[in-house]
Formats: sequence, structure tokens, C-alpha cells
Amino acid sequence: MTDKLIIFDTTLRDGEQSPGASMTREEKVRIARQLERLRVDVIEAGFAAASNGDFEAVRAIAGQIKESTVCSLARANDRDISRAAEALAGAARSRIHTFIATSPLHMEKKLRMSPEEVLEQARLSVRFARNLCGDIEFSAEDGYRSELDFLARVVEAVIAEGATTINIPDTVGYAIPELYGNFIRQLREKVPNSDKAIWSVHCHNDLGMAVANSLAGVKIGGARQVECTINGLGERAGNCSLEEVVMAVKTRRDYFGLDVGIDTSQIVPASRLVSQTTGFVVQPNKAVVGANAFAHASGIHQDGVLKARDTYEIMRAEDVGWAANKLVLGKLSGRNAFKQRLQELGVDVASEADLNAAFARFKDLADRKSEIFDEDIIALVGDSARAAEPDHYRFVSLSQHSETGERPQARVVLMVGGEEVVVESDGNGPVDATLKAIESKVQSGAEMVLYSVNAITSGSTESQGEVTFRLQLGGRIVNGVGSDPDIVVASAKAYLSALSKLHAGVERVPAQG
Amino acid sequence: MTDKLIIFDTTLRDGEQSPGASMTREEKVRIARQLERLRVDVIEAGFAAASNGDFEAVRAIAGQIKESTVCSLARANDRDISRAAEALAGAARSRIHTFIATSPLHMEKKLRMSPEEVLEQARLSVRFARNLCGDIEFSAEDGYRSELDFLARVVEAVIAEGATTINIPDTVGYAIPELYGNFIRQLREKVPNSDKAIWSVHCHNDLGMAVANSLAGVKIGGARQVECTINGLGERAGNCSLEEVVMAVKTRRDYFGLDVGIDTSQIVPASRLVSQTTGFVVQPNKAVVGANAFAHASGIHQDGVLKARDTYEIMRAEDVGWAANKLVLGKLSGRNAFKQRLQELGVDVASEADLNAAFARFKDLADRKSEIFDEDIIALVGDSARAAEPDHYRFVSLSQHSETGERPQARVVLMVGGEEVVVESDGNGPVDATLKAIESKVQSGAEMVLYSVNAITSGSTESQGEVTFRLQLGGRIVNGVGSDPDIVVASAKAYLSALSKLHAGVERVPAQG
Repeated sequence: MTDKLIIFDTTLRDGEQSPGASMTREEKVRIARQLERLRVDVIEAGFAAASNGDFEAVRAIAGQIKESTVCSLARANDRDISRAAEALAGAARSRIHTFIATSPLHMEKKLRMSPEEVLEQARLSVRFARNLCGDIEFSAEDGYRSELDFLARVVEAVIAEGATTINIPDTVGYAIPELYGNFIRQLREKVPNSDKAIWSVHCHNDLGMAVANSLAGVKIGGARQVECTINGLGERAGNCSLEEVVMAVKTRRDYFGLDVGIDTSQIVPASRLVSQTTGFVVQPNKAVVGANAFAHASGIHQDGVLKARDTYEIMRAEDVGWAANKLVLGKLSGRNAFKQRLQELGVDVASEADLNAAFARFKDLADRKSEIFDEDIIALVGDSARAAEPDHYRFVSLSQHSETGERPQARVVLMVGGEEVVVESDGNGPVDATLKAIESKVQSGAEMVLYSVNAITSGSTESQGEVTFRLQLGGRIVNGVGSDPDIVVASAKAYLSALSKLHAGVERVPAQG
Repeated sequence: MTDKLIIFDTTLRDGEQSPGASMTREEKVRIARQLERLRVDVIEAGFAAASNGDFEAVRAIAGQIKESTVCSLARANDRDISRAAEALAGAARSRIHTFIATSPLHMEKKLRMSPEEVLEQARLSVRFARNLCGDIEFSAEDGYRSELDFLARVVEAVIAEGATTINIPDTVGYAIPELYGNFIRQLREKVPNSDKAIWSVHCHNDLGMAVANSLAGVKIGGARQVECTINGLGERAGNCSLEEVVMAVKTRRDYFGLDVGIDTSQIVPASRLVSQTTGFVVQPNKAVVGANAFAHASGIHQDGVLKARDTYEIMRAEDVGWAANKLVLGKLSGRNAFKQRLQELGVDVASEADLNAAFARFKDLADRKSEIFDEDIIALVGDSARAAEPDHYRFVSLSQHSETGERPQARVVLMVGGEEVVVESDGNGPVDATLKAIESKVQSGAEMVLYSVNAITSGSTESQGEVTFRLQLGGRIVNGVGSDPDIVVASAKAYLSALSKLHAGVERVPAQG
């Protein structure tokens, strides 16, 4: 048994299954690059057979990532597995991850298959996959609620067919650490060829115990891979948080005795990138990556920290990538200073054209805002990257007015597929008027699921606002993000971005938990 | 050993220690009432000796809560304990909670006391407290990092002096479930009179395991009280989440075999009240109370849920108080319908005057917004309750304009200590211009730590916006919250509310983790 713990990140697959967390291909590539910088061992890039969009995202990531293994999910059938292999063809290192449910409830109610049929399909699928790829992971969906003897037969069979990683998910977040750890241990003891594969855990957080359950699977059960996501993103209450599980293993090395390959200084940048991309806020009291995670308020604590740092601190903020909010650039900064700061921030800009576009936005912003912070720069680059995608609806300009006792008014100029359009409306507030003006032309009929604003730069009333709109239309959910020092303009940009995504009409049929 | 698990809520004490989570006395009373409705066994209302404000808050809560025990924290000295007893004098049931640190690091670096001195002070403090109150909790701060034999001596001594509850906190969030559970078990075995007290756990979430650690303390260690907070609020990464620990014990009754007295249908209302009061957002993927906690996105999952609900659900949304977003009232609804809806929502309105004020706001809102949702009503009442406090700065009216290519302008009319003032400014955006206009008169010099906006009502672009400002001045941090369909007006209200709190100048010296 190795003393290395493999970190398998599924932000781009299970995380993206969160309602409202859909990402474009470009966004996924950007996150995959950050995961590579974080030195994640395996990146689950998507579910290639779910849609053409998913296929292209997996292919794009496979083509760009060199340091991490790139993985695609596939149901236990030949078509899904072939699509996964095809999407992964360009990868430096690839893995096919195939799954089928093994719990009585799931087999009977969802699959409508007998246990013997499930066993046979698992065996045949792994055999088929093994001919396409040397690195095969098999997951027994709802594994923790499966019957132990049956599950052991399935696992033994797929290891015999060549599966190299065996994953036992707690799909519904029902486990307790002690019980889950013992379940994995007993299962391994029942499987004669268990030492031929690496065992993996995949826990959901419905009862708030995903991290503890995963670690019990490791410590008690002997698993050596943890499946997790940045910020614990994922369906319902989400998955095991990468940042928490990694920092627990590092901080309690005395107990776990395991190495992880993660560059922890990239944790906070990864958290911010995922939060900005999906519009899912990180609550201030979130462990490791929350704004308050390293803040001390009470007088007694502050005093204690001053006297001896470890009275109240078990980790150091700088080790997980928290840096002081630095004043970096101003109106007179040049293109080289801007480029260098981007490199220091670990931000990749895909091309010179993107750099130029971002720099132009920077100069424009510097005209309106006297102090430019790191967060502003990251937002600018996000905007550039977003602008590089072909948006059907684009913001040109806006004029709005509100006055107590009168109906707020807005007038918006926008591009619709290359044509300039001027629209006007009143509304309950300037944002509502702006949206109604846009809708008077677009008539999307989309339902607004979420509207939120966060100031990107702290410590100043001159902040840029970052607005997220989540829209729903006919079962599809998209996020639009826009930033500007003017909150109404940021709202218009975010709304048009969401409408463009709806217009682009990515079809998806996502999967498993 | 009882088979009842005591739920001790410390949202108002440890939760309030979060940077930025300070609450006014009225806000604390409102939350305490919701905790009583939730049927929490013990409400830790504050730390009476920390400040006059804390003292008054504990006293106000003690005077109003009938069903739950009301508790005040106190350091292990006669002055703190006397103040706690005095503040609790009016309570139907009261508890004094005294603490001293017992870990080598804390004793040496923070207290600068020898272990024998700490032991003696603990003993004398509990003896003193026992003469003032029959229900005494003793906490060994940083207990989990304490030397087992020494800690056992301290606990034996305080039980002999009459302590009825013994709490062993993981103050720095360093524990692992297995280790923490065994620590509590071994400690209980070492203390000869351990059966004379109820044992309690208090875990912090720095490594994401507060809930699992608490439950291991219960299952393995035999503790029968869990200290927790709504939304896991608390210093750094926060405390054990009440909603997670309660739903784990309920959902896994097969494993824990324990009863909890909580009315779970009050969980989501409690979560919202705490989030709205503090301005601390709840992330969508937060277990139990996050917006996505019961949402299913993926096609496979949706299909599974339709076929058999428990394929992917281990809890029911309605059991924790998630209700459909109901269209309840409109422009023509009368005062009685409004009052009845408030009662259905479990909202207390303190007086007829408050009800009338809230109803007037409701009619005003109904003129501007065609559909009024439950969330709107809760926000209205929040505004009324806030308005009942004597604010130094108050919003009267606002006019603002922004247009691409020009500097945004704002003109604000406000009351400053009863006098009407008109101020004007430009800014980077309409919100910035509004703040600059206000600052041109007030000149607070406060630093903005956080600005966030959330739409209160989902499913409509006509939503009211709820704006939170967090300001910092000379080491003090305050939150201001304001709501309005016009986001710029909501921002002005929130900013003036925060400035009023700074002006009111509550002094605090809070405590222990």
C-alpha cells in the first residue's frame, strides 16, 4: 500500500452537475489549468457522452493538460466508453471512469436490472474499456448502500477484467465516518484480488460529513484516492471539499502519515476562480477558503494570537494562498507591468490578442477607478476571456435614472447578432428597468433564479461590482457574470451574458453523483 | 445515560464572535425567539461581562424566553460570574457557563498560569457559581489539546464542586472524529465522578469536520450535549452546524439511537433569519439549508427521483422547513390578511405600532411591485424591527443618474439626528456616488469591508434587493442591511444603517472559542 494519497478532482464533472454551475468549454479549460497548477493527480474533465459540448470540453482539456491525468466519466456501456476514449485521445495521460449502480434500490428502481445483469454489464464494460485505455476506474454507484457480498463479487470481477481503481461512492451522503470506514475495510477484505487496484472514496455532504467520511475511508478503510471538488461544489449539498481534505491530511500528518502532491498555495486562487466562474459564493465561515477562515475577532483570541500564534492557529493563511490585498497598479502602469502582474497571479492569458484586450480594459478601468487591486485584474481577464467567446448579445452603453416617487427608467444600447439596437423601459428599480428594456427586444421568457452582487475589491467604496444572473428556461439553467464599477452596467452585462449562453443552446444530459 | 441529545445553541455568543457578525440587542432577541420556536434546549445568549451591550442583550433574552434554558458565558472569575448571574436573574431557567484554558500552550502562553493555579481557579469559580445558580457548565478551553491526566483532575474537581455539564471543546478545530471520540471516552473513564455530570462537545470547523467530530464525541465518547450554531456561524471556519448535526442524528437514528427535541420545520426559517441579520450568505451547496441542498440537476438523478424518491434523497425538504415560494398577498390585501400571514410565517411583531409600520411598508411596496412573496414580507418586518431602533442616520429620498461616458451622479436626502440634509456627489457608479454623497456630510472615514446584494424574491426580475454593507472603523466592525426594489436605494439604506450602528458606538470585549 502506497503512502501517497491520490487527489482526484471532479469539479468539472460532479461539481458542474450543481444546478446553475454549468460552464462553457473555455471556462472548463481555464479551471483545468488551475487544477494542473494545484498539482491535482487526476482531473475528471466531464462526461464525454453526455453531449457534444461535454465531449468537446473533455477533448480540449485532454489536449492542454500535461501534468495531471485527464479522466472522462462513462456509463457502463460501449457507446459511452468509446466516446470517452475518443475525447481523451490527445491526452498525455488518460483514464476512463465507468460506473453502474449496485444498490438494491438503484438496480431495481432506476436501472430495472437484476443483480446478475448488473454484474455482467460491469464486467463487459471494464473489459471493453481496458482495450482502449490502460487506466480504468470503476465506480459502484450508491456503493455504500449496496449489499456487501454482491458488491464484493462485482469488484472482484472488474479487477479481474483490469480495473485499476475501485471507487465506492456514498452517492446520497448517508454515511457516518466509522461505518463508512469499516464498510470499505470489510469490502477490501472480502475481495481476493483487492491489492491489484487502488481503492477510492467519493462522498457527498448531505449530512455535513463528506470530508470526515472520506478520511475514514482512507484511514480505516485503506483507500488511497479521494474524489473531491473545489469549494465542495456538487449536486445538492455538494462533494467532499478538496481544500478541506488536503489541509486535514497535511495538518494531521501525525495521524494519517500520508503524502499529498498538492501545491497548497494554489488553493485560494482555485477557490476564487471556481466561485467567479460559477457564481456560487463561498460563505465567509467556509473552512480554509472562506473570507473569515483565518480572521480572529474576539479580544481574547487576538491577544492569544499575538502571544503565540499556534494558540488559535493550526494552519497558516499564506500556506493556502491567502495573500494580503495588494495595491498593484495604477493609471500609469504599462503593458509589461500588467503582464508581469498577471504572471505573478498565476493567470494564463491564451493569446497576445487576449492580453491586449485585457490591457485595454485595464486602462479604461484605471481612468474610472484610482486604485486597481489584484481582484480587479483577475476580473478584467475573466471579462476578456468571456469576450473571446462569440456572444450573440453584447452590451454597448446604458443610461438610467431613478428618483424617489417616480418610476425608474433605463435606456440600453446593445448588439444583437452584430446589429445595434436601442431599447427603453421603466421598472421597479434601475436594474429591473434595464432588464425589462433588454427583454422588450430579446423576449427570452427566461425565469430569474438568482441575482447576486459582490464587490470584487474590498476596502474601498470605489469597488467594481461583480453581478451574477442565473436564468432558467425550459429546464436549462445558465449563469451570466459581468463586472463594472457601475452596478447597473454590471447587471446589464451579466444578463446579456446569460442570454447569450441560452442562445448558444448547449444541450446536456449529465450523470451520476 | 439518557437517550436524549441536548442541543446547546451558541449562535448569539460564539457565532456573534465572527468578524462582522455583531448584532444589536433587538436582533439578538429576535433570533433567540426563533431558537425557542426551534425548541433548542439551551440558548447561550452572550457573555454578560464582556460589555454593557452584551449584558443588556443577555438580560433582555432572559426576560423573554420561557421554553429554553438561557445561558451566559463567564470567565473563571467572580466578577464575570456575578455579572452573568445578574443578567440571568429574570430567566425562567438559567445556566452559568464558566471556562478556563487547560492546554499546556494556552496555560503558559495566554494565561501565564501554572497547571495547579488553573486547577484551583476552576474549582473556586465553580464553587462561587454554584451558589448563584443550580445549572453550571464548565468548559476546559482547548480541552482537546490538554494533557489527559491533568484535564481529568480538573474535571473531577469541578464536578465535585457542583458543575452539572462538562464541555470539552476542540477550540482550534484540530480534531479527527476517531481521536476526539476516544479522547472523550478515555477522559470519562478517568474521572471517578463522571456520571454526576452531562458531557458536552464543542467543535470548530477549521478542517471541515466539526459535525463528524461532535457526533464521534457523542457516539464513541458518550457526550449527551452538542454545542452548535445556526449555519455553522462562528469564528474562523465557524462552529458545528446545528442543522447538520440535528439532521444527522434524525436521519441516522438507526446508528445513534438518540432523541433530539428540535422542531426541524423551523430550521430553514432560523437559517434565513441569521443570514439576513448578520449579512453572512449561506452558500448554495451548504448542507440542509443551502439553496441547492434539495435540488437535482442531472438528468439521471431527476429520472431516479421521479422513479423512487429515496434513490437520491435521504431527507425531505419540507421536514427542514423548505416551503414552495408562495404567492401570498397583493395590493388589495388588508391588514388582517397581512397579520395572519405573519403568524403563519412564525414572525413575531413586538407591538401594534410595529405591525402598523410594517403594514404601511407593505402597502407602499405593493404599489411598486405586483406580486408580494413570503420573503418580501419577512424583509418588510425586518425593516420595521430595524426602524424601531433609534437610528441616527435615516434615508428620506434619492435621485441618481448614470450614463455610459459620463460620471454617475447621486443626490440624497437624509435625516441626521432629526435634521433633514441634502447631499450630492458623483462617483464611479450610482452606488459609489450615493455613498460619496452621504460621506460628504457624515465623514465617518469607515472602511468598507463587504458589499453584497441578494435578490430576496426568486423567480422574478421584479425582486427586492437586499443589500449588506460591512464597515470597519477603529477596530470595530458593523453590518448594515437595507432592502428595496431599487438597488441604489437599498444600498443607501444599508449604508445609513451601518453608519447608525457605528454612531451608536457599542463597545465589546468578546471571548473564547
